[in-house]
Amino acid sequence: MDDFLKKLKKNSHDIDEFLNSYLPSGDTLNKKLIESIRYSAISGGKKIRAFLVIETGKFLSSIYNKKLSKQKFNELRAAASAIEAIHCYSLIHDDLPAMDNSSLRRGKPSNHVKFGDYTAILAGDALLSWAFEIIGDVNFIEDARQRSDIGFVIAKSIGANGMVGGQQADMDFSYQNTLSLSEIEWIQRHKTGALITTCCQVACILLDASEEDKKSLMDYANNIGLAFQIADDLLDINGHEKLIGKPVKQDDKNKTPNFVTILGKEEASKRALKTSKEAIAIITKYHPNSENLVSLAKYTVNRDN
Amino acid sequence: MDDFLKKLKKNSHDIDEFLNSYLPSGDTLNKKLIESIRYSAISGGKKIRAFLVIETGKFLSSIYNKKLSKQKFNELRAAASAIEAIHCYSLIHDDLPAMDNSSLRRGKPSNHVKFGDYTAILAGDALLSWAFEIIGDVNFIEDARQRSDIGFVIAKSIGANGMVGGQQADMDFSYQNTLSLSEIEWIQRHKTGALITTCCQVACILLDASEEDKKSLMDYANNIGLAFQIADDLLDINGHEKLIGKPVKQDDKNKTPNFVTILGKEEASKRALKTSKEAIAIITKYHPNSENLVSLAKYTVNRDN
Repeated sequence: MDDFLKKLKKNSHDIDEFLNSYLPSGDTLNKKLIESIRYSAISGGKKIRAFLVIETGKFLSSIYNKKLSKQKFNELRAAASAIEAIHCYSLIHDDLPAMDNSSLRRGKPSNHVKFGDYTAILAGDALLSWAFEIIGDVNFIEDARQRSDIGFVIAKSIGANGMVGGQQADMDFSYQNTLSLSEIEWIQRHKTGALITTCCQVACILLDASEEDKKSLMDYANNIGLAFQIADDLLDINGHEKLIGKPVKQDDKNKTPNFVTILGKEEASKRALKTSKEAIAIITKYHPNSENLVSLAKYTVNRDN
Repeated sequence: MDDFLKKLKKNSHDIDEFLNSYLPSGDTLNKKLIESIRYSAISGGKKIRAFLVIETGKFLSSIYNKKLSKQKFNELRAAASAIEAIHCYSLIHDDLPAMDNSSLRRGKPSNHVKFGDYTAILAGDALLSWAFEIIGDVNFIEDARQRSDIGFVIAKSIGANGMVGGQQADMDFSYQNTLSLSEIEWIQRHKTGALITTCCQVACILLDASEEDKKSLMDYANNIGLAFQIADDLLDINGHEKLIGKPVKQDDKNKTPNFVTILGKEEASKRALKTSKEAIAIITKYHPNSENLVSLAKYTVNRDN
């Protein structure tokens, strides 16, 4: 696991470097906005989504017996960075007082605590637009059809029928204990699952994967997303604020039902483990040379933050 | 002008129809979100930006002596609708309590007044994503390079160095009377000008316009955007709340310096008229058959809302 954590850290560093080098300088009247984007977007973090894009790309290139060219790697990294910009926007907006009202993120004050509410709203908006600027940039991804398809699948997965729809339901059903397990699953699938699955889809577009391979990899990603979420809910009960870098028992405070409140700790732990194992089964049956994707599946349920 | 207003109304109706037919049904846990998107996005409005996209497309096709095909018209309409979705998102976020705190929009309660703050934030986020879904959809725009280029120029024009950067500066310099005329112009060019100019650019991409034609049309659009903004600032002083459908003297309340507070009413009126005339000069010198674009330039400074 130590070796894997090193890879994850290097990946996070690479993505930060990409985002940093492409971020506008902000030497005019929008200075505060750029500062607040930099504060949240270039700040470490696990960057699981970027890792998933890049490792899926490497995996596909290995099963197709193709050497991953420098150009293709750069394309994967650009798409991965755009997805992290989107993830970052969603965290900034989720933390707002009108939303989860969370004051801590990645071990430091949330964007709105540091820069104020309107700047945080605008920083999120700008990050979302920026992601589509990266995706549409001919300097990053060569093929126009791939640029367009990537923009399309990402947009779909984060909209009203994807991530934002999930966050809406999460907010609407706070303080209500009437949600069923299948409704909790609906929220997870939309709020966090959709974008994670899209990470694999984006790599499939860039590597021209077959429909069959795309299906398997998206199935793998579905399991990763679910295992990750259940583990998150467990960490929310068990974790230490210092380690996870955000306030714990947050869901309890806002009384949002989640996998742990519905299933109980023991059953939720079992379910997370089973889901992680399903992800591993899909990927190893598929191709034995899949070390990093297997490690990622293990990591989803074996992390302390 | 009556004839022009009819055309504008018909265009607004067409765009509403497009957006309505493509909006997800929202029969699941995201029901409230879809309802709030529908409330703001499909609600009349002038839809100047959509008009500008479509009329620029028609104009280009006329100067190139090409009949505008049904397919190409549909592509213009899809791109125009995506831009209106973006404009709508920006209005919803601008109206938020953390931003301009405006309770009235298009003659009815603002989105956050009707649906609450978090839903309004998420409705804006979803509309922004939706716009890129429309742009990336092969069912709407046929050519992949055009889809990708349109996504790119729009994303660039609404991000930190475009619309959102302008809104940030507008907020940062509220309650400060230290802004110079060139700084006010910077804010206008970013906050409202950038997306309006992009409307013409998008039509140029769809009609494969020459670089020279693109330059002229974007120059025309720059003038339209500026005239529109100065006229807006004048309406903010002179207009009647009932007619313009949003609270007047809003800028006075928030003490944001604008063209009128800097130049005075008389000088600002002169400047708006001059800018509108410049737009007309560009387009008529260019080609005599430009009735709708000329009417639009006149309308920017001759409207009561």
